[in-house]
Amino acid sequence: MTSRIAAIYIFDGVEPLDCVGPFEAFISVESSEGEALFETGMVGETMSPVSGVGGLVMTPRWSFETMPEVDLLLIPGGAGTRPLAKRPEIADWIRQQNDKVEMMLSVCTGAHLLAAAGLLKNLKATTHWNTYDWLRSIEPSVDIQEGARWADNGRIICSSGVSAGIDMTLHVIERLHGEKLAARAARFMEYEYWPLT
Amino acid sequence: MTSRIAAIYIFDGVEPLDCVGPFEAFISVESSEGEALFETGMVGETMSPVSGVGGLVMTPRWSFETMPEVDLLLIPGGAGTRPLAKRPEIADWIRQQNDKVEMMLSVCTGAHLLAAAGLLKNLKATTHWNTYDWLRSIEPSVDIQEGARWADNGRIICSSGVSAGIDMTLHVIERLHGEKLAARAARFMEYEYWPLT
Repeated sequence: MTSRIAAIYIFDGVEPLDCVGPFEAFISVESSEGEALFETGMVGETMSPVSGVGGLVMTPRWSFETMPEVDLLLIPGGAGTRPLAKRPEIADWIRQQNDKVEMMLSVCTGAHLLAAAGLLKNLKATTHWNTYDWLRSIEPSVDIQEGARWADNGRIICSSGVSAGIDMTLHVIERLHGEKLAARAARFMEYEYWPLT
Repeated sequence: MTSRIAAIYIFDGVEPLDCVGPFEAFISVESSEGEALFETGMVGETMSPVSGVGGLVMTPRWSFETMPEVDLLLIPGGAGTRPLAKRPEIADWIRQQNDKVEMMLSVCTGAHLLAAAGLLKNLKATTHWNTYDWLRSIEPSVDIQEGARWADNGRIICSSGVSAGIDMTLHVIERLHGEKLAARAARFMEYEYWPLT
């Protein structure tokens, strides 16, 4: 079975569960022969440790410069997305990655960085329930799926807040590898609440 | 309202969601005046970064030596608990902490470290569903609540695997601060599947 590279962007002010929930889901899925199906790592703007919300310090596996070509890129949310949404070089990086990746994913206010990069024009999206207006202010054409756990546009998929990133990642795993392996990953994580499709 | 210190033990081979899920729950709870109710941090044996399952690198806020007196200590699981369960100095540290803390919590195979420290004699407990026999082999008198999300003995509370640590932490928040604030934290995290009691 094909193995894919999944990178998760981390930055100062990242919400811990937004990034680590999907990380756990990606590392929990195995082929029926017990092989890992995703090589998963955190990517930072540099290799310096970042301080997430609540002071959780994580060190990236890759920097923007050293990262390999990845198949899936996930942009999490958190208070740190407010300043990042105003930095043109972050929007540039997201656009460059978007030209190359198989799927671009966001959790929570990570969607706002996709919007700032111009990627959500006329697309379905979702974000944390308390930030719908902020998302619309960045991208007025966005079609927010209020209350949905995720909004799947095929290649660009956004999830709502914090824990919903886990549900979306299991959904992505199901799309790529089928219900059986996705359900087995959920069972390993004891995260069996989510509807599979 | 009283503010408590919650420490979460991290180590090489810690399961990422076991420690970060409860971390997120503790940092998400606020008083009705918007004040944080838990000062939450990761504690390592030393201040060196640890490498969790899947290669997630986290740096502790405190070491065994520099940590303050904490009110709640949470011991997560992961492959790293296998070697730790054989180290008498880890059992000693857990026993010393247990003499001081208001509550001792475990997630997944963190329960095995509580058992190795002799803390689960004749108590209810739970752990990841695929490690019940291993837990019984360390502490034959343990009363495993198979299939439960958590087992609450009052002061010592164990949760089952990985994501169940979030449910247990919300349960602890409810016990300490009431249903309203626990439900608000769950709503912030968009983690509303769990039964409150």
